[in-house]
Amino acid sequence: MENQPTGSPPLRIVVIGGVAGGASAATRARRADACAEIVVLEKGQYVSFANCGLPYHLSGEIESRDDLLVTTAELFWKRFRIDVRTGHEVTRIDRDGCFVEGTDHSSGKSFRIPYDRLILSTGSAPVSPPFMQPPCENVRHLWTLPDMDAVISQLRDHAVKRAVIIGAGFVGLEVVEQLAHVGIRVALVERGDQVLKPLDRHLARIIERDMADRGVSLHLSADVTGLRRDGDRATAVELADGTVLETDLVVVGAGVRPRVDLAVAAGLPVGPSGGLVVDRQMRTEDPKIYAVGDMVECHHGVLDRPLRIPLAGPANRAGRIAGTHAALGESQPMGSVLGTSVVRVFDLTAACTGMSEAALDANGIAHRSVIIAAGHHAGYYPGAETMQLKVVYSPTDGKLLGAQGVGGQGVDKRIDVIATAMHFGGTIHDLAQLDLAYAPPFASAKDPVHMAAFVAENDLESHPGIVAPGIDLAGFQVVDVRNPRELVDLPLEGAISIPLDELADRWQELDPNLPTITVCHSGKRGHVAACWLRGKGWRDVRNLTGGMAIRMLERES
Amino acid sequence: MENQPTGSPPLRIVVIGGVAGGASAATRARRADACAEIVVLEKGQYVSFANCGLPYHLSGEIESRDDLLVTTAELFWKRFRIDVRTGHEVTRIDRDGCFVEGTDHSSGKSFRIPYDRLILSTGSAPVSPPFMQPPCENVRHLWTLPDMDAVISQLRDHAVKRAVIIGAGFVGLEVVEQLAHVGIRVALVERGDQVLKPLDRHLARIIERDMADRGVSLHLSADVTGLRRDGDRATAVELADGTVLETDLVVVGAGVRPRVDLAVAAGLPVGPSGGLVVDRQMRTEDPKIYAVGDMVECHHGVLDRPLRIPLAGPANRAGRIAGTHAALGESQPMGSVLGTSVVRVFDLTAACTGMSEAALDANGIAHRSVIIAAGHHAGYYPGAETMQLKVVYSPTDGKLLGAQGVGGQGVDKRIDVIATAMHFGGTIHDLAQLDLAYAPPFASAKDPVHMAAFVAENDLESHPGIVAPGIDLAGFQVVDVRNPRELVDLPLEGAISIPLDELADRWQELDPNLPTITVCHSGKRGHVAACWLRGKGWRDVRNLTGGMAIRMLERES
Repeated sequence: MENQPTGSPPLRIVVIGGVAGGASAATRARRADACAEIVVLEKGQYVSFANCGLPYHLSGEIESRDDLLVTTAELFWKRFRIDVRTGHEVTRIDRDGCFVEGTDHSSGKSFRIPYDRLILSTGSAPVSPPFMQPPCENVRHLWTLPDMDAVISQLRDHAVKRAVIIGAGFVGLEVVEQLAHVGIRVALVERGDQVLKPLDRHLARIIERDMADRGVSLHLSADVTGLRRDGDRATAVELADGTVLETDLVVVGAGVRPRVDLAVAAGLPVGPSGGLVVDRQMRTEDPKIYAVGDMVECHHGVLDRPLRIPLAGPANRAGRIAGTHAALGESQPMGSVLGTSVVRVFDLTAACTGMSEAALDANGIAHRSVIIAAGHHAGYYPGAETMQLKVVYSPTDGKLLGAQGVGGQGVDKRIDVIATAMHFGGTIHDLAQLDLAYAPPFASAKDPVHMAAFVAENDLESHPGIVAPGIDLAGFQVVDVRNPRELVDLPLEGAISIPLDELADRWQELDPNLPTITVCHSGKRGHVAACWLRGKGWRDVRNLTGGMAIRMLERES
Repeated sequence: MENQPTGSPPLRIVVIGGVAGGASAATRARRADACAEIVVLEKGQYVSFANCGLPYHLSGEIESRDDLLVTTAELFWKRFRIDVRTGHEVTRIDRDGCFVEGTDHSSGKSFRIPYDRLILSTGSAPVSPPFMQPPCENVRHLWTLPDMDAVISQLRDHAVKRAVIIGAGFVGLEVVEQLAHVGIRVALVERGDQVLKPLDRHLARIIERDMADRGVSLHLSADVTGLRRDGDRATAVELADGTVLETDLVVVGAGVRPRVDLAVAAGLPVGPSGGLVVDRQMRTEDPKIYAVGDMVECHHGVLDRPLRIPLAGPANRAGRIAGTHAALGESQPMGSVLGTSVVRVFDLTAACTGMSEAALDANGIAHRSVIIAAGHHAGYYPGAETMQLKVVYSPTDGKLLGAQGVGGQGVDKRIDVIATAMHFGGTIHDLAQLDLAYAPPFASAKDPVHMAAFVAENDLESHPGIVAPGIDLAGFQVVDVRNPRELVDLPLEGAISIPLDELADRWQELDPNLPTITVCHSGKRGHVAACWLRGKGWRDVRNLTGGMAIRMLERES
């Protein structure tokens, strides 16, 4: 692992695009090779900016715009001798001649730059639905710094009182939160039937209910048919069901598409999910050309096939690998990606890794799952915040397929722990035996991760099994082991009520020959009850996972 | 996995000791076998209490004493039909006759109880140094609820203004914090030369400095030679160096010893670290007798041999395994234990997993390490708190041997993630490729775990290497790449000052033939500088890991 011998000309590494892994690739290449000529060609004004931070400047939570400028062309030169050229749009890659050509928008001149190694980091672009044509000054994406500046000038100059956010993905929810924080009445419009598609519906419902409680107007399964306009301003958003949402501002987050035109024109192949095909060293089919970030397909750890996963973490790690390999000809391989994500929405955190049950169903992969409710630290220590933690696993061997959490503090920790176990192909049995840090302010001796794994182990070993939150209870003997006062707020019709602490005295009131389901609020007492009945010789008794708390969410229309 | 056939007499499972895994074993046995007779014999008054929560009731942070009573004998009967007998001290196990005998302290009568399966959970007892004899009413352990009650009655009845805590382990530091919170002047006395022995010294120093800044009087490498007494009260603690610490209260946390007398008397073997020998199903040499908790040796994941690891998490997990196996004759195996721990001390969190460098040295295991400083979330999002994260790994293959973190929020998450990777025998390369959740309020696109792994990968691949915080810099060309204003507060004599952003212009001022060490504040810029020089063909250039921030702590006497 040496640099080229003294005397040979320096390697010329050209990077197209600073964001989404390009800057990371360039600095890493520099660390690996102090003599290489490294050029970054960036179409926009900024070599790198904190795109994940844009929503937080809308409300002033991130006070200074400068904080979003992660680095500058000047610093790149001073510190790394990396030659950043902004306003340089590459229009063609010549693979035979090993050069790129394009236009310098600052001078209007064209340029041609040779490369020994080329790293593509052209990222992705937000999808513009038809209603965005012709453009309105108050209908915007939030994808770049200029996008953000445009939204902020709307907020500042137009006394925005109402806003419509279109698209309930991560960025959409962050914008909802930030605009609500500054007193704007927000409506959220989403084509799908839930927010946060990577989550299964019952967990997404928790976020939806909380937003609704905070006055956000939620429109799910809603198609935007058009805008009402007044000159170059939109005044309302029209939905297919006839709803008209009057508004002063529209922010559109309707998904992204990879920017692969340049690469495709150069004959580089694109995979089934629309991203460029690369190997574990981020090399395209052309061994001199690498690609990273939103524009490529990474290896998905659960699906075990390439998939486009447009997230900042994998983009950065891929940049490091591409930069190293471009400079040295070798590198560690890129790891599998699980789509691990997290978002804060008001006081709630939602996070996930791997695949949801809905996504597994869509891919024909068998799965089981458990949902538990648990405090983020010991219940006896003040301030424990409840989380719902769902773990999805293979019915054959308990291999982890995914996890989702919604709650207060500590959700991100549990999802990161499970994502780490999934990196190693771990099972629910591994989760059950993890040696995690415990002290009352941080966790419980049995962490939520352990608790979920224990329930999953019980399920797989059928002592006793569980049933899914949405199950139709008709035809079952349903034993509700909640306390009488819990039934007042949330009754369960047709169930036989025997509080858990009376079950040992009263279980003989039940019919051991009927298929039976036990139910409590969160699933914990129901499990104890199911164990008891099964232990008494009952053949067919199962527990409702997640309890009434989750069932209620699942069955909301 | 069936219960015994109908008609056969129920299995009788006897558990000795409720805390430290015993209650967990009993409830788990009940879930596995609804018909078993399960008896818990507990010497004390409480079947189970939150021993890790005791320090937090001293200050009232945990308001109600009742919150510490995790469960009660009454609930155990009502819910689980588990027969808890408090005040029952077992004095002998008869393995041939399969019974235990002892004294019921409430009635004064002796008892004899047969068992089919016996689960030992007798825990550990705090060590009482010689000066605790004869006892003083204001010199106390903090191990049981009665201990806590005694300390609280001191606080309440004796206007305690000064306290001496003896022993700077986890509990000792929690007590320091809690007593300081209620305005008591606290002195902390420790025989070793640092607090929190599981941490390496430089990280422990961060906690020590913070405590000192808060007015805690710290006495390290200090032996207690005796107490000054006034009747049955201590008035001062005398140290070997002649220091006399006047005090109103002494809390002693001088380590624990396993309670194995009963088991040893029954002929069950004890391992080299003093705990009972058990297999992965928590069975002792006698297949009818299980043992869990502080009294046993678990398999240590790094040392790959049995070791006593008295922590609540492993005790609970072991209880679950023993209870299952006792009831069913089969269970998942107990996982390896890494000693993962966490403690909050004022606004700082300290956490660790696996082994420190000091412990590895003591065991003759080769290791390397890196230390990084990083924010717990994106720097551009407000409120990022700094952590020092140390990762220790094998010099041959990068296998993880341990990790330690000290800082504000998020330390526990990173240690749990690394502990999870260690469960699978992971390497620094695994850490570098983990797919962790990122959004600005929670993490950075390159998480502290990634950053530490990247530095470690650089180290192992020698581009460039690193040197340890305590290295003697004499004989090296030391290049200090900090900015001039950083040098004012913390100068580094004998170093050549070239701020990083001038290095690309000025590196030729340096002598490429001298062994060279680069230095900055946290190690990050030093790494960039070392890469630069090495890239210019220098053969011997390394970076000071952790930078001046850690070196300063390491070299404090």
